[in-house]
Amino acid sequence: MASKFPVLEVFGPTVQGEGMVVGQKTMFVRTAGCDYSCSWCDSSFTWDGSAKEDIRQLTAEQIWDELQETGGDRFRHVTISGGNPALLKNLGEFTQFLKQKDIRIALETQGSRYQPWFLEIDDLTISPKPPSSLMKTDFHRLDEIIEILREAGRLSHVSLKVVIFDEADLRYATDVHKRYPDVDFYVQVGNDDTTTYDDAALKDALLAKYEWLIDQVSASSELNHVRVLPQLHTLVWGNKRGV
Amino acid sequence: MASKFPVLEVFGPTVQGEGMVVGQKTMFVRTAGCDYSCSWCDSSFTWDGSAKEDIRQLTAEQIWDELQETGGDRFRHVTISGGNPALLKNLGEFTQFLKQKDIRIALETQGSRYQPWFLEIDDLTISPKPPSSLMKTDFHRLDEIIEILREAGRLSHVSLKVVIFDEADLRYATDVHKRYPDVDFYVQVGNDDTTTYDDAALKDALLAKYEWLIDQVSASSELNHVRVLPQLHTLVWGNKRGV
Ligand code: SF4
Ligand code: SF4
Repeated sequence: MASKFPVLEVFGPTVQGEGMVVGQKTMFVRTAGCDYSCSWCDSSFTWDGSAKEDIRQLTAEQIWDELQETGGDRFRHVTISGGNPALLKNLGEFTQFLKQKDIRIALETQGSRYQPWFLEIDDLTISPKPPSSLMKTDFHRLDEIIEILREAGRLSHVSLKVVIFDEADLRYATDVHKRYPDVDFYVQVGNDDTTTYDDAALKDALLAKYEWLIDQVSASSELNHVRVLPQLHTLVWGNKRGV
Repeated sequence: MASKFPVLEVFGPTVQGEGMVVGQKTMFVRTAGCDYSCSWCDSSFTWDGSAKEDIRQLTAEQIWDELQETGGDRFRHVTISGGNPALLKNLGEFTQFLKQKDIRIALETQGSRYQPWFLEIDDLTISPKPPSSLMKTDFHRLDEIIEILREAGRLSHVSLKVVIFDEADLRYATDVHKRYPDVDFYVQVGNDDTTTYDDAALKDALLAKYEWLIDQVSASSELNHVRVLPQLHTLVWGNKRGV
């Protein structure tokens, strides 16, 4: 019998605002549930119970139907986000479904779990969480995941991304980059006000922090093969959901 | 004897604000001279004579020395920009020099000339100019360039980028994408006020136009495998040079 997956949102087409395929035209599928509870999580509604009534249990085919209803023929790329979609053991049923339709797939996870269907993801972002999140990275697990992907020849489809709020986070990011020097590496400005409606102030604050992060990375000889990005969607839409 | 190249600026490290390696930490080398004169050129000082006194004739080794003086050990990536650096037949002396130092190289050109040293560029952006530029694209030439790069197995190192100011530009971009469907394709918001010092107004205008461009691309079934980006450096620094 077909597995069901807890889906919170299906929306798009819009553009990916972050990471290795920043700017990519894509549809989003957001799954519910996370094994972390980052202090600054910008999608805590996926795990804190506040959007419990919006979770629907859908099969791969039902998600696909909804993607088509929403996106028509205006997409060839789907981003699976969470929460942590890597909690969903059978999500390979969905990724295989998308592959059959010749859709490229992006997925982001914090790297706390491996799933065999990672090997089917075209743009896999692993985003271990820095000290400001108050979470603790299991580096043995992360080593294992990266090693499997390396052995499978998938590293060209993989990137590491660390969100940066402060200098301690940047030191953590530097350590991550040195631990996995052959994996494409991204640092991203953190948004520490995920509830404000004052979009103008939020944009200014994020651009000022982006400039700070560029300065920090520019000054470091340990962060040379690095890409530094803001969250484009937050610059355009503030904290609005579903865009 | 070593060739000399007309160099206008050497600066960095900073981040690449546009295109296929947006966010990449990099040094910039800007060469003088262009065979185009786009109506909205944001670096017209490279060809309109206004910065004539700043042009220095430097050998590959002299440029490298200057990169090291400025960037120290804080870079592994160099972006060559212009003007149109593809006017410089012997620039391969410089790209080979960088390769020997294990430096990754990005270069942007509008696609009016081919040079054999294109095959050594890690991130080659070809940016044909849309109608609003008032320039005319030589598509036979562009076909030839893309074909050589395809034959040489370099397409994974190549992208096409079109700057968009209006709907006519977007139609042009759609035609370019359909002509070369296997080449990674980027559209970028144009900056039509390259002289203003009112950074706040410029940012707001660029973000509004970015949102417009996202909406246009989202609505098109001919622009699915596409990435849509703003100019990050203009959002952060306005029209300031050398950042
Ligand atoms: S891992 Fe991601 S979804 Fe989970 S709590 Fe942290 S930021 Fe939120
Ligand atoms: S091709 Fe580039 S440098 Fe030359 S005029 Fe056009 S925008 Fe300016």
